[in-house]
Amino acid sequence: MTISNSTRTPPSNCPRGARSQRGRTVTLLSIALALGTALLPVRGAETGSSKPQVEQVAPGIWRLRFGSPERFTPTHFRSAPVDTAGLEAMATSPPMPLDPDRMVFRVSDRGCSLQLPMSPGESIYGFGLHTELFDLTQTKNGQTGRRVFLKPTDSPENELGESHAPAPFYVSSQGYGVFVDTARFASFYTGDVTPVRDAAATGEGGVQTSTSELYRARRQRVKTMLVDVPVARGVDVYVFAGPTMLDAVERYNLFSGGGAVPPLWGLGVQYRGYARFGAADTLALAARIRAEHIPCDVWGVEPGWQTRTYSSSFVWNTNQFPDPDAFLRQMRAMGYRMNFWEHAFTHPTSPMFKALKAWSGNYLVWNGLVPDFATPQARRIFLKQNDAVLFNRQVEAVKLDECDYQPESPTPWSFPPATAFPSGLDGEVMHSLFGLLYQQTMLEPYRKKGLRTWGLVRNSQALASSLPYVLYSDSYDARCYVRGVVNEGFSGLLWTPEVRDAASIEDLYRRLETVVFSPDAVINAWFIKNPPWDQVNREENNRGELMPGREAVTAAVRQVLQLRMRFIPYLYTAFDEYRLSGKPPIRALVLDWPYDRKVRQIDDEFMFGDSVLVAPMFAGQTRRPVYLPPGDWYDFWTHAKIRGGATLEATNGAEQIPLFVKGGTLLPLARPVEYIKPDTCFDVTVNRVGGHPADFTLYEDDGVTAAYAKGAQNQVVLHADGDRHSAVRHGDYRGPERYKITAWKPF
Amino acid sequence: MTISNSTRTPPSNCPRGARSQRGRTVTLLSIALALGTALLPVRGAETGSSKPQVEQVAPGIWRLRFGSPERFTPTHFRSAPVDTAGLEAMATSPPMPLDPDRMVFRVSDRGCSLQLPMSPGESIYGFGLHTELFDLTQTKNGQTGRRVFLKPTDSPENELGESHAPAPFYVSSQGYGVFVDTARFASFYTGDVTPVRDAAATGEGGVQTSTSELYRARRQRVKTMLVDVPVARGVDVYVFAGPTMLDAVERYNLFSGGGAVPPLWGLGVQYRGYARFGAADTLALAARIRAEHIPCDVWGVEPGWQTRTYSSSFVWNTNQFPDPDAFLRQMRAMGYRMNFWEHAFTHPTSPMFKALKAWSGNYLVWNGLVPDFATPQARRIFLKQNDAVLFNRQVEAVKLDECDYQPESPTPWSFPPATAFPSGLDGEVMHSLFGLLYQQTMLEPYRKKGLRTWGLVRNSQALASSLPYVLYSDSYDARCYVRGVVNEGFSGLLWTPEVRDAASIEDLYRRLETVVFSPDAVINAWFIKNPPWDQVNREENNRGELMPGREAVTAAVRQVLQLRMRFIPYLYTAFDEYRLSGKPPIRALVLDWPYDRKVRQIDDEFMFGDSVLVAPMFAGQTRRPVYLPPGDWYDFWTHAKIRGGATLEATNGAEQIPLFVKGGTLLPLARPVEYIKPDTCFDVTVNRVGGHPADFTLYEDDGVTAAYAKGAQNQVVLHADGDRHSAVRHGDYRGPERYKITAWKPF
Repeated sequence: MTISNSTRTPPSNCPRGARSQRGRTVTLLSIALALGTALLPVRGAETGSSKPQVEQVAPGIWRLRFGSPERFTPTHFRSAPVDTAGLEAMATSPPMPLDPDRMVFRVSDRGCSLQLPMSPGESIYGFGLHTELFDLTQTKNGQTGRRVFLKPTDSPENELGESHAPAPFYVSSQGYGVFVDTARFASFYTGDVTPVRDAAATGEGGVQTSTSELYRARRQRVKTMLVDVPVARGVDVYVFAGPTMLDAVERYNLFSGGGAVPPLWGLGVQYRGYARFGAADTLALAARIRAEHIPCDVWGVEPGWQTRTYSSSFVWNTNQFPDPDAFLRQMRAMGYRMNFWEHAFTHPTSPMFKALKAWSGNYLVWNGLVPDFATPQARRIFLKQNDAVLFNRQVEAVKLDECDYQPESPTPWSFPPATAFPSGLDGEVMHSLFGLLYQQTMLEPYRKKGLRTWGLVRNSQALASSLPYVLYSDSYDARCYVRGVVNEGFSGLLWTPEVRDAASIEDLYRRLETVVFSPDAVINAWFIKNPPWDQVNREENNRGELMPGREAVTAAVRQVLQLRMRFIPYLYTAFDEYRLSGKPPIRALVLDWPYDRKVRQIDDEFMFGDSVLVAPMFAGQTRRPVYLPPGDWYDFWTHAKIRGGATLEATNGAEQIPLFVKGGTLLPLARPVEYIKPDTCFDVTVNRVGGHPADFTLYEDDGVTAAYAKGAQNQVVLHADGDRHSAVRHGDYRGPERYKITAWKPF
Repeated sequence: MTISNSTRTPPSNCPRGARSQRGRTVTLLSIALALGTALLPVRGAETGSSKPQVEQVAPGIWRLRFGSPERFTPTHFRSAPVDTAGLEAMATSPPMPLDPDRMVFRVSDRGCSLQLPMSPGESIYGFGLHTELFDLTQTKNGQTGRRVFLKPTDSPENELGESHAPAPFYVSSQGYGVFVDTARFASFYTGDVTPVRDAAATGEGGVQTSTSELYRARRQRVKTMLVDVPVARGVDVYVFAGPTMLDAVERYNLFSGGGAVPPLWGLGVQYRGYARFGAADTLALAARIRAEHIPCDVWGVEPGWQTRTYSSSFVWNTNQFPDPDAFLRQMRAMGYRMNFWEHAFTHPTSPMFKALKAWSGNYLVWNGLVPDFATPQARRIFLKQNDAVLFNRQVEAVKLDECDYQPESPTPWSFPPATAFPSGLDGEVMHSLFGLLYQQTMLEPYRKKGLRTWGLVRNSQALASSLPYVLYSDSYDARCYVRGVVNEGFSGLLWTPEVRDAASIEDLYRRLETVVFSPDAVINAWFIKNPPWDQVNREENNRGELMPGREAVTAAVRQVLQLRMRFIPYLYTAFDEYRLSGKPPIRALVLDWPYDRKVRQIDDEFMFGDSVLVAPMFAGQTRRPVYLPPGDWYDFWTHAKIRGGATLEATNGAEQIPLFVKGGTLLPLARPVEYIKPDTCFDVTVNRVGGHPADFTLYEDDGVTAAYAKGAQNQVVLHADGDRHSAVRHGDYRGPERYKITAWKPF
């Protein structure tokens, strides 16, 4: 991997006020015209279509405006401006990949819909953070074409397409991307509807005597993508050119403002303690983890810090935490960065309740207010209280819980879609945007201070790539968690398959091996008193019945977490690339090998950076098939060379996750540290993997501030040619060096 | 039971053209005003509410108009006019049961919502034909308050409230009913939302460490019903007074036009043959059923009669049925009435395809057109073809399949909600109304001829009580099927828990025992060649491997079906009562005992007519608890007297369904016939059940035409006083007598 644009000016993470405003004048005439379309019966089945206004907004990106779009959409609430410079710097600038003349747009009372052309063999990816689905044209019974529901949910392991981050963006195996700028609960039909114009006098004969046969999908000669947007009388559709899917994804991420920039410590291990722990218990366990040399950068405090939760008071519980400042001081003295749990629902006993009431939705959640984060007033009131308890204490990060929804639950606990908010948002739009707006709100204190953060959030949506929050879930299916890692890169999202308890020691290892190859290596022990490596079983853990042989387990866990720490320089560089070019640091194989049909359905292997292929194993497996795309590969553990373009059987004798390194690369690996200090300098070994390795550029900066955006950053270019090698540092960052190249080794 | 209004003029089932039209003038100003509400942000959480226009539309019924309602609603497509005379004849006329000042209405871009007051202890029933839910405030984990989704589905056995007939009508244990006149996919929150005004500074302390505890519902001091209607900028809400729930249900049914009137033969047994049968196989089996003296009035022909199905050609398959007229003649010669399967989706090879294309939705289903039954043109074209193949051949009934939807399916086979129809209906509204409009269309030929029919349909909605179609389902859970029977009476619907194959002979008996106490005793053998009593197992049945001992099973089945035939005079009278007073012939106990809290959650017992309580048993049970409300009861089988107000244990030694007869009643039972001929006269034994029996009025007419509506009907009043008794016939019907009272017997 080389960084070809080191002189490019990165986008500043500018405050919300500075984003471009899309003004729109609504006249009485245009209202009447728009409504006329809706009230007059549509005559004839195929009339009523209208052509979009097409405008190129950047090289390789076009906006197609159909009808009169709504005001409150993802672009209206942008988290960052378009990275125009980044887009202009892209190598290719192909023509518009879709033909507007083949699109059919229609408005009705219930919203609008759009037909887009599709090809019969097309695969579709994206639509946010799925953990159950991959190629969104595939169904379990082998049909091609399905409906994808874009609703935020707290139960993402469903076949519907609902997820913690439903994003109206998809990429096609044909090498283009489409973003439909809506915060409505839109549906996409990926090739399973047939417009009347495509009627064919074919059909199969014979009487069927089973419902599965009666109701199966029929073959189609022509394929159509149908986009169903409720409520809206128009919609902006952005088309992203390729020529490859990865190009389209990168354009989308740059259009979103570029990738998020983690603080260096954010890439370390995060441990979240038992929810009932007070200061004393927390400090004791934190000290034990240091004593046992378990790598850990971030300590998460769960709800117990507040006097009231579900809903929340945002007031320290001084029974549990008698002296918050002393507690934080002691944690920091052990080198921990602090992350505090919260959700937004504000209990009547909260000091901000009265002020917030006028700037909240008109329904309560768990007896608590729902702040209208689309208003500056709610943000200000909410932040004032959060400043008082958290941010003025220099808390490094927050976990934003329960900002998702239960769209199909008979007993939803969050606010109804019928909720009215003072900003004018309704509950449906607010549900789509709640996670985004909450992230934006909680990011403000860091931006003001010029600091980075690396938080957790349970809901996001479109244009989120610049937001330094990692998605997580309450669901806990290991295969789905891996699929989340594979999918995150399609839609500019970050995901942690967090580890809690485990069904077995093996399950614990398997889950940890996966989480260390994610954007945030989280161990979330919120419901167990002792770390899971003391006891994987939840009940026994809480009764203090630790596992026999836990010392060996602890040693093995330490090794897995050290593996994460070895990859930090490599991963930090991948994130810099994410920021600058929009290339997701973790991604499905199909993004890197767009022309290899064999990777189209591979949802259990992924690229971690540019040269490492990860193929997680699951508890109960002793072997698994691993497909390696064409080219030379090297087993990370044995260094054996493997010819790609074939499927091999990975075995797991040494209880190690199958990892493969691409030939012709330089792989820098660090000596693992337990946690990252302000002056941490990694001892880096550069592995020459295969012959004629490409250069690798290590990214370097202060690791915590936004000074990089003003140029305080370095590139350390690693170069190897036969036995000769060099590491050349350039750039304007003058702080402590992050990397000391201690060895160059053939792999 | 007495019929107190025998002189009342019943409503004629008038053709659609004659229904009242609700004209509405839309001016540019009103458009602008309506839209203004939507575009301007709502400021403040509790503003924006507006009061309804209240109008009394009949004694005990009020219309509350909120905002500007949509045009295409259930009342717009009424199947019958309001039975004003019936409503005026009701004994009580209490005041408006709900306070409009306590209602909060709100319009937003996405639709409108309405808060209605509720009481903490209130139970809610109705919302259409549920098979999974009963009291709609109850949830599985004991919460009170839930969301009910009103979406038509083909998978009704869900917790969401979606069903084959989602009706926006509910009745409350407080003794009132509410109908929200919408064809949108509305949601009702039955007491589980909290408006901000009800915020309480209470709340429970303590940190929880399980999601079930975190996300459980909280106790509420004040309860609110929230109605969420998408798209609409206003809605008409009809409130039905009690004082009891049954009064409110009767008012709703009379508002719907009164109850459906079956032909006499419609109450007999229906057998539906194997889908692959042609004429020869059908005739052979039909003859065998006669030879074995299995009661059967109606023969159902499944898809095989058409050249193409899924989608359908509406053309006879002359390979299978070489001479349709001869086939029908031969079936009729055996005394069978004919019911033909169809669905509406029209295959390109259908002769009507070309003409229908302009009057269909703009998406195909299984490559077939979806006729827009909201247009007279589509109805005319569709009926012309149906006349040619079916109605001109005097086919007595049809089965209207697949008119439901798959709202939560990732691979829906029906048309998308984004579909546009020439009438101006969108796919969402069409899905809600498709079953109603299809029923109306297919009823026209019968109305023209002045004939009754008794069809089957898989989707219905509100105001359907006058439609002579019985709902059925592909799902097959025995408990859910019984719950459907219990629930049908709340919402003016009819339901058959049809019998197909069975897990065991016992299961077959249990299912048959239930279906004979439903509005249509259907045996649907569409996927088995031989009747289920030959072989309950589907695969063995189709391999021709008949059960050993099938003769004994056949005899037992014959007895169960004869039980149905014994009840026909009694049931026919109950249906006459349904027509005239709106009282559902089959209903939950809570409708008859509104003040007995013990029946509030009883969803597995029901009243069949006014004096018979049915408590079905399920395969695997040898006994079951049966709660009998206060009063004297008599075991139908043993005639033992039982003191009500208590729960007894029903055992099932004789393989008979537990049946209990209310004391103080006359129960007329007929000698079973195999099928009903034009001149059938039932030999009736009148059972005197308990002391001082109330009179019972047998209803009599020609059994097949609409002449009853012009007065050609008789009442035969049965009266007993000690040993004296009388049967007095009065009325203007002069055809063959239907009842010969052959005996009066103490029970």
